[in-house]
Amino acid sequence: MLKPAKKAVTHLQKNFEQMPVQRPVTPLLDAIDCPDDLKKFSTEQLRTLADELREFLLYSVGVSGGHFGSNLGVVELTIALHYIFNTPHDQLVWDVGHQAYPHKILTGRRERLTSIRSQNGLTAFPERGESEFDTFGVGHSSTAISAGVGMSLAMRHLGKKHKAIAVVGDGAMTGGMAFEAMNDAVQQNADIIVVLNDNDMSISQATGGFSKHLATLWQRGLAVDIDKDGKPIITKRTIASDDRRIRHYLHMANEVFDDLSVKIPKKISEKIAEQGLPTPAQLERLPEKIANKIADNMFPENLFKAIGFQYFGPFDGHDVAKLAQVFERVKQLNGAVLVHVHTVKGKGFLPAESNPITYHAISKLPKQSTKTDENKPTKVVKKYSQVFGEFICDTANFDKNLMAITPAMAEGSGMVEFAKQFPKQYFDVAIAEQHAVTLAGGMATQGVKPIVAIYSTFLQRGYDQLIHDVALQNLDVTFAIDRAGLVGEDGATHAGVFDIAFMRTVPNMVIACPKDENECYHLLKTCYQYQGTTAVRYPRGNGLGVAIDKNLTENYPIGKAVLEKTVNNQNVNKTDKKVALLAFGSMVKTSVDACENLAENFPKIQFSVYNMRFAKPIDNELLDELLENNYQIITLEEHQIMGGAGSAVNEYILAKTVTNRQALPSVLNIGIADSFIPHASHQQQLTYCGLDVAGVVQKIQQIL
Amino acid sequence: MLKPAKKAVTHLQKNFEQMPVQRPVTPLLDAIDCPDDLKKFSTEQLRTLADELREFLLYSVGVSGGHFGSNLGVVELTIALHYIFNTPHDQLVWDVGHQAYPHKILTGRRERLTSIRSQNGLTAFPERGESEFDTFGVGHSSTAISAGVGMSLAMRHLGKKHKAIAVVGDGAMTGGMAFEAMNDAVQQNADIIVVLNDNDMSISQATGGFSKHLATLWQRGLAVDIDKDGKPIITKRTIASDDRRIRHYLHMANEVFDDLSVKIPKKISEKIAEQGLPTPAQLERLPEKIANKIADNMFPENLFKAIGFQYFGPFDGHDVAKLAQVFERVKQLNGAVLVHVHTVKGKGFLPAESNPITYHAISKLPKQSTKTDENKPTKVVKKYSQVFGEFICDTANFDKNLMAITPAMAEGSGMVEFAKQFPKQYFDVAIAEQHAVTLAGGMATQGVKPIVAIYSTFLQRGYDQLIHDVALQNLDVTFAIDRAGLVGEDGATHAGVFDIAFMRTVPNMVIACPKDENECYHLLKTCYQYQGTTAVRYPRGNGLGVAIDKNLTENYPIGKAVLEKTVNNQNVNKTDKKVALLAFGSMVKTSVDACENLAENFPKIQFSVYNMRFAKPIDNELLDELLENNYQIITLEEHQIMGGAGSAVNEYILAKTVTNRQALPSVLNIGIADSFIPHASHQQQLTYCGLDVAGVVQKIQQIL
Repeated sequence: MLKPAKKAVTHLQKNFEQMPVQRPVTPLLDAIDCPDDLKKFSTEQLRTLADELREFLLYSVGVSGGHFGSNLGVVELTIALHYIFNTPHDQLVWDVGHQAYPHKILTGRRERLTSIRSQNGLTAFPERGESEFDTFGVGHSSTAISAGVGMSLAMRHLGKKHKAIAVVGDGAMTGGMAFEAMNDAVQQNADIIVVLNDNDMSISQATGGFSKHLATLWQRGLAVDIDKDGKPIITKRTIASDDRRIRHYLHMANEVFDDLSVKIPKKISEKIAEQGLPTPAQLERLPEKIANKIADNMFPENLFKAIGFQYFGPFDGHDVAKLAQVFERVKQLNGAVLVHVHTVKGKGFLPAESNPITYHAISKLPKQSTKTDENKPTKVVKKYSQVFGEFICDTANFDKNLMAITPAMAEGSGMVEFAKQFPKQYFDVAIAEQHAVTLAGGMATQGVKPIVAIYSTFLQRGYDQLIHDVALQNLDVTFAIDRAGLVGEDGATHAGVFDIAFMRTVPNMVIACPKDENECYHLLKTCYQYQGTTAVRYPRGNGLGVAIDKNLTENYPIGKAVLEKTVNNQNVNKTDKKVALLAFGSMVKTSVDACENLAENFPKIQFSVYNMRFAKPIDNELLDELLENNYQIITLEEHQIMGGAGSAVNEYILAKTVTNRQALPSVLNIGIADSFIPHASHQQQLTYCGLDVAGVVQKIQQIL
Repeated sequence: MLKPAKKAVTHLQKNFEQMPVQRPVTPLLDAIDCPDDLKKFSTEQLRTLADELREFLLYSVGVSGGHFGSNLGVVELTIALHYIFNTPHDQLVWDVGHQAYPHKILTGRRERLTSIRSQNGLTAFPERGESEFDTFGVGHSSTAISAGVGMSLAMRHLGKKHKAIAVVGDGAMTGGMAFEAMNDAVQQNADIIVVLNDNDMSISQATGGFSKHLATLWQRGLAVDIDKDGKPIITKRTIASDDRRIRHYLHMANEVFDDLSVKIPKKISEKIAEQGLPTPAQLERLPEKIANKIADNMFPENLFKAIGFQYFGPFDGHDVAKLAQVFERVKQLNGAVLVHVHTVKGKGFLPAESNPITYHAISKLPKQSTKTDENKPTKVVKKYSQVFGEFICDTANFDKNLMAITPAMAEGSGMVEFAKQFPKQYFDVAIAEQHAVTLAGGMATQGVKPIVAIYSTFLQRGYDQLIHDVALQNLDVTFAIDRAGLVGEDGATHAGVFDIAFMRTVPNMVIACPKDENECYHLLKTCYQYQGTTAVRYPRGNGLGVAIDKNLTENYPIGKAVLEKTVNNQNVNKTDKKVALLAFGSMVKTSVDACENLAENFPKIQFSVYNMRFAKPIDNELLDELLENNYQIITLEEHQIMGGAGSAVNEYILAKTVTNRQALPSVLNIGIADSFIPHASHQQQLTYCGLDVAGVVQKIQQIL
């Protein structure tokens, strides 16, 4: 019989009512202005420090909002890394980066943490410009191993002895480039320590073979530890987060020992029978080859070892002393090393532990008392992602061939309800944008109708696939592009401001830009029903509060604009100046507001706002008409000016100039100038770019 | 002692002098107009057919040029697949596709094969428009599993029972999206058969951990076979391509058996000691668990099993009867299955077998007798890739911080000599474009100077990384972009006609477009020495024969154009018409030729050709000057018009119109219209697009 594993130390576990609303007292934490200060601590003090750091995090993120669960999960890991490694000389790279708050706290940015994600405040992710401890700018997933290998090879070349450490979540490991990087790390024999932060031990939630593989490694009940000479040794796993489950796995493991028992000296064998699994000491007393066999049988397949990594783990990622020991020992090793660490997302805050997806990031900590008053009538403003969710549910109700694909963004893309109602038409492919796009291409060859729901910024990961595996073959795939335009607090790494440029240069593409929720719904419908490669790009967050008109059964004609509004139409003569604002997507509303504002100051000028609806094809007939009537043309888009929708207008208009010498146009392109836009609220970003109403008014006034 | 493995049947192995120059006599092959015709054959006939098919291939590719080694390697594999599966209903997807010639031959395109890669002839890759047997258009690597999974899921949804089979080379497996697809195939429980065509058994040439892993699986000397009920059984591998090596591996394998011998019944154990490894029958007689243990110990790590695939192999990919048996049995299975097959690139043609890289593709079969006459003076025209190779060698001679990275394109990118001379500064990261770019970003953080050598079309795979991991952090990385523009015979999948558009929308980028070899060399130098993110795009193939002036030590000023040529300067008055041709890269020479042609017909018009040199930043001062002097402006580029360099000119010029009402420009953008350009010779493609001298002259004449 197996003994149940010893209960691990219980960390503080808070509930809503226990959340600190005042800056907590954190004497140890306050003493740390840089990681060097940490190095004086004993491992016992590290435990206390972890409690303080977690308390501080709960307070700080509760005040400022921001990423939550992932940061609570890596408190001990972060402490152990900075405790053992010589940062910033040793290069610590945080994959994705939304788990870097404890890292920021320990590296001199503690008191600025409440400013995170706000204008001029700390960025949500590591950023090189912010601190020398932020060795690499991150934001998108699966890049850390590549960057770490690059650093390691460069340091070797320069004769520097520092280490490169990449901390990667299990989710990010499914991104293909993580695999590319592991493959190459072995090839280059790079000195790289990959810390696999595994917080998905449950088989039921596992997405994909890789995730199941991690679960298998975990469930063996054993670990590959590292001894003081850097050699791997087999131990019983020491974590005790789920005793019942652990007992089950230990029992399974033991069965394998039974099979092998003939090989184990009888004395030990009896002890095993009596006490459960052999201790490391017992294993050490076995002949080496037999011990290895047992280890092999405990770990029959190991992807990391298969690819050529030295593998250690899984370890309890909340046991700071153990982590410190492991890192201290791993530091001696050369070559590619993977340390598999198990952590609990939201650790220490019960609501987040039990619902890590909801608490991945928060705007502000939800107070238990903040229940919405159901009697109070409020205007329900839908998010664009909700509109998309509604569209796919409505359509799937009568169209069995709709297939919805998401690269691990079910919640963000508004697909939770669809996944429930239409599980057979729903495909979450994990963080794997390239695969998501080509999967859709493959599906389309069979006559079903795939929709890829993807954020604009992540579609950059599937660009080649968009070109080759969809557009070039003119396959019938619809891209529902969420988070198009500026995205506010997440900053430059998540902005969707290149998609029109990189898509419109691709033949066969149709690109739609809805102005509001209703148009979003119907442009999705239009593009979905169009036979070919289409994309609908819509903003992050709330719509304008426009109801969806489901009585509208006709599709919008592809490539046709509509007149949204004309002001001063009555006041002006035929010869008076006429200004046409050609607005794309979110800029339609802004343009209307701007015109109303301008109309007063310029009563003799007629302003017309056109909702362009499509960035490709552009409505050439409209442009012809405007040219003929000598309109001053202004294009407006929440996208880079360079190569954007305005640029498409330019191309057509200038093409006219060579055949029609009378067409001598004047065009102003309004959009994002040629720079990356730092994080701030979305409104602040618009103001910064001159894309709010005041900014647009000012730009137009300048030319009138 | 182990018996040496039985020598396998030797296939015909030709040398140069044995190459068929006449259409060979191929009676069996001639009887096959579609795969159904194949199904009547016996397996013995299949062997003869394979010989005929190989003979035909040698003849046909010898005549037409095209991909060579990879096609010779998959003759038996292709026959076995079409023999067993019910194509085109069963969906056969060829990864990359340059091994699809035998497939084209067996699917009704035999007599058209000599037209391959020529205008209006067969495409070099599977293309949906060409045949119903070409289920998915390919060209770039690592897409087949994604497409196959998509097909499989769609067919399941539609209630179709057909199979999806993806044939993937070992090289393509390192591309991250192959891993993404495998991960998801398991998650979706897709019915997908992946045939891993492994033709790199050598450890010395292995690039990366994955490749080493395959070598390990191979070197065990055992295989996981499949019995008639679809169950895995362990067998001794039957291939005998290298007896000495096999004996060595069998010996290693046997050592493991020794360790386990206590567990094997003595009788069997003695037999093993006497005869070598146990036969499948002997293994079957062992208690199942022990047999499994032995199997586990023979295959201690298996990446495919780790990720959740059913694994079978490795098999001899030239044993057509065995392959047919395996596919017949595998067909019964559900879920994700991987069949690991070993083939020899260039099989049957000795020069290609011994030098697969040289014979990957050929323009025309090199005749043994075609020795170049060394005494005959010929003008040596360098390829642009050679210019790049020369540049990095020259620079590395005095700059130890130059680090050159290639995603498996050392030969194509001209890096062979550099790799020899500077092995410590050379990084071939395998087919892994995403990783290549971020690796460079990581290196740049440490102060070394990485150059990523990549084809324009493959940079599409690293687009997100270019944005986030390099440009956003304004890291000092130089992209040496080969194959920019149209690429001729490889067709639309390999055209580099989007790069200016997708790069220029990204802030911080500098994009240079050299007009000839000398400028290519010096723009590489200029961009390399510039502190920031830069790209130099240059064409496929030969330069113009311009010598590199190494005395030129100054760099070109970033973003400055130069006047290349003016014609009719003397003839015209101040008020006469002036035309400015703003040419980018390869179009500079074309523009000069066009102007000389135009000058005669339009003696009263002054034509000036400007070599723009940079697509970003654009030379605004020049544009100001041209506007001021009322030039008719014409932009010329070998790139999509939409979003291209001309579009950048448009943006600046139109911005002028709103502040300066006198600036009423006329601009003609010449480039590739909004469509994918089919394969043909490069010159034919230029003619097709109106980008040759005659086409440009005609376009300009139309507007004068």
